[in-house]
Amino acid sequence: MGYATQKMAEEKVFKDPVHRYIHVRDQVIWDLVNTREFQRLRRIKQLGTSYTVFHGAEHSRFNHSLGVYEIVRRICDDVFPGRDAWNEGERLVSLCAALLHDLGHGPFSHAFEKVFNVDHEDFTRRILLGDTEVNAVLARVSSGFPQDVADVIAKTYRNKLVVSLISSQIDADRMDYLQRDAYYTGVSYGHFDMERILRVMRPLEDQVVIKLSGMHAVEDYIMSRYQMYWQVYFHPVARSAEVILRKILQRAKELDANGYEFKQPLRHFQSFFDRTFTLKEYLALDESILMTYFQLWMEEDDPILSDLSDRFVNRRLFQYIEFDPGKDFRKLAELAVLFTKAGIDPEYYLVDDSSSDLPYDFYRPGEEGERLPIHLLMPNNEIKELSRSSQIVDAISGKRRTDYKLYFPEELLTDGKKKAVKQQIRDMIREGER
Amino acid sequence: MGYATQKMAEEKVFKDPVHRYIHVRDQVIWDLVNTREFQRLRRIKQLGTSYTVFHGAEHSRFNHSLGVYEIVRRICDDVFPGRDAWNEGERLVSLCAALLHDLGHGPFSHAFEKVFNVDHEDFTRRILLGDTEVNAVLARVSSGFPQDVADVIAKTYRNKLVVSLISSQIDADRMDYLQRDAYYTGVSYGHFDMERILRVMRPLEDQVVIKLSGMHAVEDYIMSRYQMYWQVYFHPVARSAEVILRKILQRAKELDANGYEFKQPLRHFQSFFDRTFTLKEYLALDESILMTYFQLWMEEDDPILSDLSDRFVNRRLFQYIEFDPGKDFRKLAELAVLFTKAGIDPEYYLVDDSSSDLPYDFYRPGEEGERLPIHLLMPNNEIKELSRSSQIVDAISGKRRTDYKLYFPEELLTDGKKKAVKQQIRDMIREGER
Amino acid sequence: MGYATQKMAEEKVFKDPVHRYIHVRDQVIWDLVNTREFQRLRRIKQLGTSYTVFHGAEHSRFNHSLGVYEIVRRICDDVFPGRDAWNEGERLVSLCAALLHDLGHGPFSHAFEKVFNVDHEDFTRRILLGDTEVNAVLARVSSGFPQDVADVIAKTYRNKLVVSLISSQIDADRMDYLQRDAYYTGVSYGHFDMERILRVMRPLEDQVVIKLSGMHAVEDYIMSRYQMYWQVYFHPVARSAEVILRKILQRAKELDANGYEFKQPLRHFQSFFDRTFTLKEYLALDESILMTYFQLWMEEDDPILSDLSDRFVNRRLFQYIEFDPGKDFRKLAELAVLFTKAGIDPEYYLVDDSSSDLPYDFYRPGEEGERLPIHLLMPNNEIKELSRSSQIVDAISGKRRTDYKLYFPEELLTDGKKKAVKQQIRDMIREGER
Amino acid sequence: MGYATQKMAEEKVFKDPVHRYIHVRDQVIWDLVNTREFQRLRRIKQLGTSYTVFHGAEHSRFNHSLGVYEIVRRICDDVFPGRDAWNEGERLVSLCAALLHDLGHGPFSHAFEKVFNVDHEDFTRRILLGDTEVNAVLARVSSGFPQDVADVIAKTYRNKLVVSLISSQIDADRMDYLQRDAYYTGVSYGHFDMERILRVMRPLEDQVVIKLSGMHAVEDYIMSRYQMYWQVYFHPVARSAEVILRKILQRAKELDANGYEFKQPLRHFQSFFDRTFTLKEYLALDESILMTYFQLWMEEDDPILSDLSDRFVNRRLFQYIEFDPGKDFRKLAELAVLFTKAGIDPEYYLVDDSSSDLPYDFYRPGEEGERLPIHLLMPNNEIKELSRSSQIVDAISGKRRTDYKLYFPEELLTDGKKKAVKQQIRDMIREGER
Repeated sequence: MGYATQKMAEEKVFKDPVHRYIHVRDQVIWDLVNTREFQRLRRIKQLGTSYTVFHGAEHSRFNHSLGVYEIVRRICDDVFPGRDAWNEGERLVSLCAALLHDLGHGPFSHAFEKVFNVDHEDFTRRILLGDTEVNAVLARVSSGFPQDVADVIAKTYRNKLVVSLISSQIDADRMDYLQRDAYYTGVSYGHFDMERILRVMRPLEDQVVIKLSGMHAVEDYIMSRYQMYWQVYFHPVARSAEVILRKILQRAKELDANGYEFKQPLRHFQSFFDRTFTLKEYLALDESILMTYFQLWMEEDDPILSDLSDRFVNRRLFQYIEFDPGKDFRKLAELAVLFTKAGIDPEYYLVDDSSSDLPYDFYRPGEEGERLPIHLLMPNNEIKELSRSSQIVDAISGKRRTDYKLYFPEELLTDGKKKAVKQQIRDMIREGER
Repeated sequence: MGYATQKMAEEKVFKDPVHRYIHVRDQVIWDLVNTREFQRLRRIKQLGTSYTVFHGAEHSRFNHSLGVYEIVRRICDDVFPGRDAWNEGERLVSLCAALLHDLGHGPFSHAFEKVFNVDHEDFTRRILLGDTEVNAVLARVSSGFPQDVADVIAKTYRNKLVVSLISSQIDADRMDYLQRDAYYTGVSYGHFDMERILRVMRPLEDQVVIKLSGMHAVEDYIMSRYQMYWQVYFHPVARSAEVILRKILQRAKELDANGYEFKQPLRHFQSFFDRTFTLKEYLALDESILMTYFQLWMEEDDPILSDLSDRFVNRRLFQYIEFDPGKDFRKLAELAVLFTKAGIDPEYYLVDDSSSDLPYDFYRPGEEGERLPIHLLMPNNEIKELSRSSQIVDAISGKRRTDYKLYFPEELLTDGKKKAVKQQIRDMIREGER
Repeated sequence: MGYATQKMAEEKVFKDPVHRYIHVRDQVIWDLVNTREFQRLRRIKQLGTSYTVFHGAEHSRFNHSLGVYEIVRRICDDVFPGRDAWNEGERLVSLCAALLHDLGHGPFSHAFEKVFNVDHEDFTRRILLGDTEVNAVLARVSSGFPQDVADVIAKTYRNKLVVSLISSQIDADRMDYLQRDAYYTGVSYGHFDMERILRVMRPLEDQVVIKLSGMHAVEDYIMSRYQMYWQVYFHPVARSAEVILRKILQRAKELDANGYEFKQPLRHFQSFFDRTFTLKEYLALDESILMTYFQLWMEEDDPILSDLSDRFVNRRLFQYIEFDPGKDFRKLAELAVLFTKAGIDPEYYLVDDSSSDLPYDFYRPGEEGERLPIHLLMPNNEIKELSRSSQIVDAISGKRRTDYKLYFPEELLTDGKKKAVKQQIRDMIREGER
Repeated sequence: MGYATQKMAEEKVFKDPVHRYIHVRDQVIWDLVNTREFQRLRRIKQLGTSYTVFHGAEHSRFNHSLGVYEIVRRICDDVFPGRDAWNEGERLVSLCAALLHDLGHGPFSHAFEKVFNVDHEDFTRRILLGDTEVNAVLARVSSGFPQDVADVIAKTYRNKLVVSLISSQIDADRMDYLQRDAYYTGVSYGHFDMERILRVMRPLEDQVVIKLSGMHAVEDYIMSRYQMYWQVYFHPVARSAEVILRKILQRAKELDANGYEFKQPLRHFQSFFDRTFTLKEYLALDESILMTYFQLWMEEDDPILSDLSDRFVNRRLFQYIEFDPGKDFRKLAELAVLFTKAGIDPEYYLVDDSSSDLPYDFYRPGEEGERLPIHLLMPNNEIKELSRSSQIVDAISGKRRTDYKLYFPEELLTDGKKKAVKQQIRDMIREGER
């Protein structure tokens, strides 16, 4: 019996608060979990800076990755077998892609990617195909298997049905994170009847479709998603922490570019400043390392780096006001001038930020990544796009909603120095609150 | 109006998965939460190494501290007011002690305390009374207030009723952690009817007593506690990670004592090796810092430090067998000799560990910290010790149960070198499994 | 101290699966719960025939009435006190109206009301004001108090704020039944963050408004309501049982009108057939009595009454097809003719039924009971109608959705008799399924 | 393909609050659910009079029967297949016995059985083997199949492994009712990790054993059971309602024996009074019928029957005191004399009642139904009785606990008549409260 189909003598289970138990019988999956690249995901939080608002949101990407695997495993083992469109030979590649789909995420990846211009999807691919323990496990299955897994995650795999399990508007990734993030934050959104959705999923040529009888469960899922985005993922206070984080990294990079001598001699960041980093250097980073740097940087002489680091570590965040970039662009410029006058660098202390979401969309060729719509399987075996059957989904379909905020350190505007100009700033800001 | 009674303009709430919401109205509490010493608890896990078994157990002591506060707040605001034995003047000191009772915990404190011979309770006291932001907040209430809070936590406070809220066999600390740790691990133990227990708590001179009608809820709480200890807190695999952690710190300390030159130049540990550490140096530590060191130490030349660090970071844990220290002491000695012969240092690779619990005990003067028993308030207003009324509690009362394990790196015993002696070791170990 | 403010020596609590505990301190409330008219609600199911689909839905209106009381109690005791628009003097009338709002419901009231042309709201009023135990309790508060409670329930009470607690588009009635019916049926809809909604409710002149920060919780509540209507309340199989129930009562009434001699001598229904019923006769009915009659009627000689009763008691329900009354009216007439030819009385065996819901609506003067919209309280203290702020609510606002079904006994169409005409019927029906 | 293995074209599911979904694929099971004898279980409450205390406990035996079926189905379909000791041929008989094990229960069966000296287990057998729809379905499987199912329920079936699934100290019956009754009452007891227990169940010759690794889950189950008995099943107020119910039936029977002419002409009870009842007459009874009678009897001339019926219907229950039959037997006799003097018939108004439970017991040949102990499967494949491994179970093993209460109508003792003797009674009773 080959490695691809090798089962462990006894099933392993992980106790999981969301799915109760996560079941592993395949030796390949067990070996992947035990690689150092996968274990590294324990040191990267699933929700980045959200823990600064929702103190329960301290769970890692390790958690979530196991969860996505478990959902796909249930589909492959309980729902799809025996159906025409499903090819048992795609089971293992589906499980591996589910487990490994977030492998390339770096520490606080949102901010990190922006500042250092890296892309976690690119790193997922490099880990799968490069000189890693994960690659060694996958290559034991077959020489082409690492590439297959990478293709599924990159959505270029030949079998689009497999791709749609992991990446579609109702995929295992989203079904896990909505429930999981709801569980750890403790919010009452994020719940939907996944059991029912799994029961009514059907493989159909190049996609997963949903039987009409499950339409209301899917509506509920889309509403959960909508609520989680606006209540949790886009929470303005978590974004304040994110803004500061980004500005710390930007400041450090700038200081290095300007020849600043850091007191601390560690070199984890050097190759990122220089843009010479290797895969190994990327994998050496995690959120422990970043938190350690931030604490060291609190002792640096540069007042901006030191202040921002202190803010992040000790949660002294920026305040914010609503901000309409179309209407208020002139105001932002004026505020920048006033900040400079007040001795506060607007580059680091006056930051606009936006979050934007499209709750659901039907297929629009050529636009926005051509997201796959959700299709219903009607009783007469026809296929119908969801928003054509669901009044509620139709109502929100294709409607992008964006939230803009302007962040700044309120207490710096009320201390004793430069009183007049600060008063002017405060007046302008107070207007924005009205 | 003084600071002690100052309420915020608007109540602040924290979303909490266990208590739904945590309510803060007192300015003092809000200010304490925002100190850097309290924020530091976000960087220290509540359950140390348990996350290596229960992947959900990544929650911090920050979580738990807020939870204990909330339980005491509910007692002080909803249950006790209007009862004779309760003095409203004790409310604030109770809330502060609840919030701050774990303030002195260090990173992975169990292991850290053992190796560096420090005591987190001592540090809690030093943070409360020393030059800290927490002390500054407390001292604003009154000059003696920091000492009062410290006394409650040290159980020496004049009002024993207040002490018993925080430290007794049915205190807010235990009620929070049982539920919280159950929630994050996802186990089905740890649940009990706290609502009911809170409803039947009564202040009585120097202790909290429980109305007889709540006896079954208390029984259930004690059983939950028992199950959590054996299913979660003493889990042998988490203890394996803990053993390795302890051995890493011990090795680093030994290397330093022997003049070993560490490649990495950071000095967070130096004062602990030298036993010259200050409060500030203690507070500078957290689990991010330790994880960073472990990753740096993976690159050290010392093979033991490097191997143990790799094991911890990448979760390559020791195996274990049952071990009876009374019966098997000779065997341990023999194994140590064989390990040495096999070129494996038994000091670091053959470790016995025990966990021990006393689920409940009545009062035994002079013994074991003289733990306070749980007293029932009978309908005739008499007081009766719990185990005299509850058959189940009586059955387990005072019965200490201890679990011994012997840890070792299994795969080192099966590699190619020194085959004969390793075979001998494996035979001895296999005997222990029978 | 008067009866109106009399508190019991010790609080009474009811264990409730939805609200955990229901708290009663007021003697008036306790006395009302113990009246025979309120205890009668234990013998009337909250969800009528839904138990034929959701076997868990066997809970009574007693359950729900206590739940509505508890929600209003929490608003009156925890949320409103101290706010300008709230008058403490309205507390008791609010609690009583909440507790008693469903008092007039009869057994399977939907069907019963239709056939006997009675109105449960009218009976609620008569119980409150007539010669009943409930009236005696209320009148002890003051002579005008029974009328006040009746006015609140009838929405004519002078203080519209009180009315809106019990009857509005986000009232305690709906908040309880959505959660409660979800709990007992076991569906995953019906959950929303009531804790949050309660926290952001504010009394304002003649209505309850919701702070803007609670808008998403209200959206979630409206979506829950939408899902419960379509997944539970309008379930076509429960409506099949409802149709049969209605037809049983209609048949019995018709038989009586035609001078049919019932075998069973009981006379509970006589006054309803004659339309001479008194309040006392109405109160003597409950679902036990009706179920007893249905079982007795199974033994009657009239084949239609006997068959329909057997169908209801032993759950041998009608099948159904989609039916568009606009388009299919001719078909219904044709089917009726064919049913008659086949010897099956279409009056009892071919029944169209519709369910219709308007998920939310803004205020439309003069239309449909002029339902009160939900108003948001903006940060600047302005008031804004919900659908003007919420994109999702706007999308479904004012959009009525109706579901039509045609019910018939499928197995009667496949038995041996009158094969040709039955085949014709089956063909017509099968068309409807396409 | 035979009827025994016939699967439905599409799986049917029941939404269930406890097990989420109940799955039916077998045509036999579906046909059994649709029999009138099984549907009758909808009209019999699972917890008899408990709803008078726990208002949520209105669920029927239909609920529970489906739940037991689902647990056995999961064992047969997910846990046992492929294991040596399990014979696939026993699957169907196991499922049927699980579904039908409570079929013979009558209305409020505890009280009913006592007064009319019937036995629900005997009726289960008669329904399975007699002229019923259930028998017709079972006999289609094979002529001996009804007897096989009856044997499993009677514990005399040849394959004791099958018996132990339905009737042992850790069977599907108990696992369902503990969870289900906890759910509907809303108490926080009754929860245990059934998922884990199912995972570690192993078939072994003539019994189900539990792998050692599941011992703590079983301990938790036994504690849940203990708590449910004392908190719910033996609740003294529910027993008060039960006492009254018993006394109503006893009074009606006595009146009939004495030639009393009942006003109401219905004859459901006549054959029970005469002890001539048939199976059909037994099946014609349900709780609706009994509730109807009680309401009719409220109008009878006999003051005792009328009063007791009113008490039950309108929940005007007896009060109670603790009562020790060993010590207080003389007092009971004295009270009876005083009651008679006071004009209150002690036969109906002074009732002692006891509840007794043995939480767990090891095997004691010849005693108490020889209950089967729970056996653990040790890692070395030995079998060990649970209480020999579990300290907690050992502590309560074989310890019977009994609760005695004395019930009486308190308000009759304080009305105006016979003041002196009533004072004497009240004094004696008050003594008992001390």
